[in-house]
Amino acid sequence: METSTHPGDELELSIDLRLAPGESAATRAAGIAREQTVELDLALVPEPVRAAAAGRVVAVAETGPHRAHARLAFPAAAAGAELPQLLNLLFGNISMQRGVRLTAVRWPEALLAAFPGPACGVDGLRARCGVTVRRPLLLATLKPLGLGASELAQLAGRLARGGIDLVKDDHSLADQPWAPFAERVARCQEAVAAANRHGRSCLYVPNLTGPIDRLGERVEMLTSLGVRAALIAPLLVGLDTVRSLAARSGLALLAHPSLSGALLGATHGFAPALLWGELFRLAGADGVIYPHAGNRFRFTRRECLDVAAALRRPLGAFAPAFPVLGGGMDAARIRRLRRLYGPDTIFLAGASLLGHPAPEEGAAALRHEIEREPSPPGRLSGSR
Amino acid sequence: METSTHPGDELELSIDLRLAPGESAATRAAGIAREQTVELDLALVPEPVRAAAAGRVVAVAETGPHRAHARLAFPAAAAGAELPQLLNLLFGNISMQRGVRLTAVRWPEALLAAFPGPACGVDGLRARCGVTVRRPLLLATLKPLGLGASELAQLAGRLARGGIDLVKDDHSLADQPWAPFAERVARCQEAVAAANRHGRSCLYVPNLTGPIDRLGERVEMLTSLGVRAALIAPLLVGLDTVRSLAARSGLALLAHPSLSGALLGATHGFAPALLWGELFRLAGADGVIYPHAGNRFRFTRRECLDVAAALRRPLGAFAPAFPVLGGGMDAARIRRLRRLYGPDTIFLAGASLLGHPAPEEGAAALRHEIEREPSPPGRLSGSR
Repeated sequence: METSTHPGDELELSIDLRLAPGESAATRAAGIAREQTVELDLALVPEPVRAAAAGRVVAVAETGPHRAHARLAFPAAAAGAELPQLLNLLFGNISMQRGVRLTAVRWPEALLAAFPGPACGVDGLRARCGVTVRRPLLLATLKPLGLGASELAQLAGRLARGGIDLVKDDHSLADQPWAPFAERVARCQEAVAAANRHGRSCLYVPNLTGPIDRLGERVEMLTSLGVRAALIAPLLVGLDTVRSLAARSGLALLAHPSLSGALLGATHGFAPALLWGELFRLAGADGVIYPHAGNRFRFTRRECLDVAAALRRPLGAFAPAFPVLGGGMDAARIRRLRRLYGPDTIFLAGASLLGHPAPEEGAAALRHEIEREPSPPGRLSGSR
Repeated sequence: METSTHPGDELELSIDLRLAPGESAATRAAGIAREQTVELDLALVPEPVRAAAAGRVVAVAETGPHRAHARLAFPAAAAGAELPQLLNLLFGNISMQRGVRLTAVRWPEALLAAFPGPACGVDGLRARCGVTVRRPLLLATLKPLGLGASELAQLAGRLARGGIDLVKDDHSLADQPWAPFAERVARCQEAVAAANRHGRSCLYVPNLTGPIDRLGERVEMLTSLGVRAALIAPLLVGLDTVRSLAARSGLALLAHPSLSGALLGATHGFAPALLWGELFRLAGADGVIYPHAGNRFRFTRRECLDVAAALRRPLGAFAPAFPVLGGGMDAARIRRLRRLYGPDTIFLAGASLLGHPAPEEGAAALRHEIEREPSPPGRLSGSR
């Protein structure tokens, strides 16, 4: 994925197009440039307005039968320095066409500067976990949905004692009757704090995703309990809500990909590195959870590595953010992926820990895996 | 689309599946039921938890080569009566698979009752427009992006004088330098109010879509100016933000489909009637804007009619909401579609008005079209 900051005051979008039989790539690209800005036939747009506000085609090339690649430029001012409008500019009305896939954006520095990005980033989150060496972090999930608050808290304590760095709520734990938000959060935080009094520095990460008008009171509750990180699903609450929380809550934020997969079609939508790697980070995620290739989801290894690269590469003044790799993570898989992803990575263990007869022992085994020297580059990294 | 309220305390989802070669429909459906609730192998889930919280397969049938239809039931309690979690339950993690299309939901009454739905609905919005007879309403758009606030306001006044019922901001008008939010809204509202002093009852509908932490002050600004309706794009600000605005703002809300098309894939995502017709209405939209078939977007006539039916059919205690039809609406098209969609419809005219040398005359012609007796059922409605 080609991504960098744009020297001028334009955003430049790279778009893969599928064309209808007989459709001209140039006409289609020009239509998209119009649709996303002035949304009128240019003959109806006064010349000064057209020059200031209309999108334009930089280049277009056919890349195969009924396929084309286009580069479009939009004035940065059209984004209005607001994240909802930036999303609208990138993929608003064209979301209702077919065969438009946004693969990369060159960002003007001035636009990036309007968004603070991650408040903690890789270094800040590692510090909150009390990890002073540069190693991957371990994240475990409290589940299943349906368990009571006491049972979840007991599990949280066992995982923390075993040496897990971050213990998060399952993304489906909201405010259900089985373990209501307030009770669950208080008990889990208490259990993790108790483990920390015996030599651990685990962070409890409750799921903050919830009604928009209750986020303020929930942030206050978390703060008063000493919670320092939270899980949030940007597509469930709106990406701009993440920006607002990053700017104001004081919490480190892990972004969950719930619902966002619908925007990542093979021929329509966003490339994963753009949505998860750049937009989630721009909004302020300190880590972004997604499934590494080779499990029940559908992403390729290349796409997954591109997300990690996008989260950590220089972009504006943003702190780098953690890729948080999920999907069937057990000790063997973590051992293989450690070299490939490097130390600025979080591994998310789910079923492999919960299926263990003694979760603290399972956690300790993973912690051992994380703390030992990584093996020298092997087949996986060699084939990267 | 089959939709009704569910008598019990379960949501029942209808899902079309694309299967990989050799994949079992039953196994795939069971995997989805698990993935969306307990998210663990059932062997790891204690029996009482499984019974209370796990999704289950009601029925599954192969419907063609590599195609299947499944009905799944989820406990209503799993939704936690919160809209972000409801979205997560419907299409959270499975958004990251391929070939899962949610076509209908049977809603438990108790869950629907947790959401107030449209605050105004069809009757309330018609009343705000001062329309005392049951006829379609006319909506026009102020654009293009790049025009100054005075020019947009002048256009708003001309459209109002011509007899347009609602004049809205283009969905791309946010807070750009060319026409900043505060200045644009004040001038446009003033221009429409001036037209109303000469016998019109036009509503100005500014675009409220913007940063989440500025929505409160913007609602106050609108209220203080006497604005009584607003445009909001649920996917740009989060669907739950619409619910919160519907419950608290006092504004009638028109929902814009920006970005939402990415969730409406032919084989993956939501059926338009479910997303636009049911979820947008459940969140509180009084009208939902979408393009009628046969223009530059990709929806079929059947899908478009299904959206309108979903917006208006009995569902919980929700007021019916308006379908708001856009996409190349001129007098000829409105004449044809009037019979098909009936009087509880809003027609959105864009380019046809802005391309007119005298917008007030173009508006008057459309108003004439709306006010005359509709022609008797013709070919279009006959072929419905």
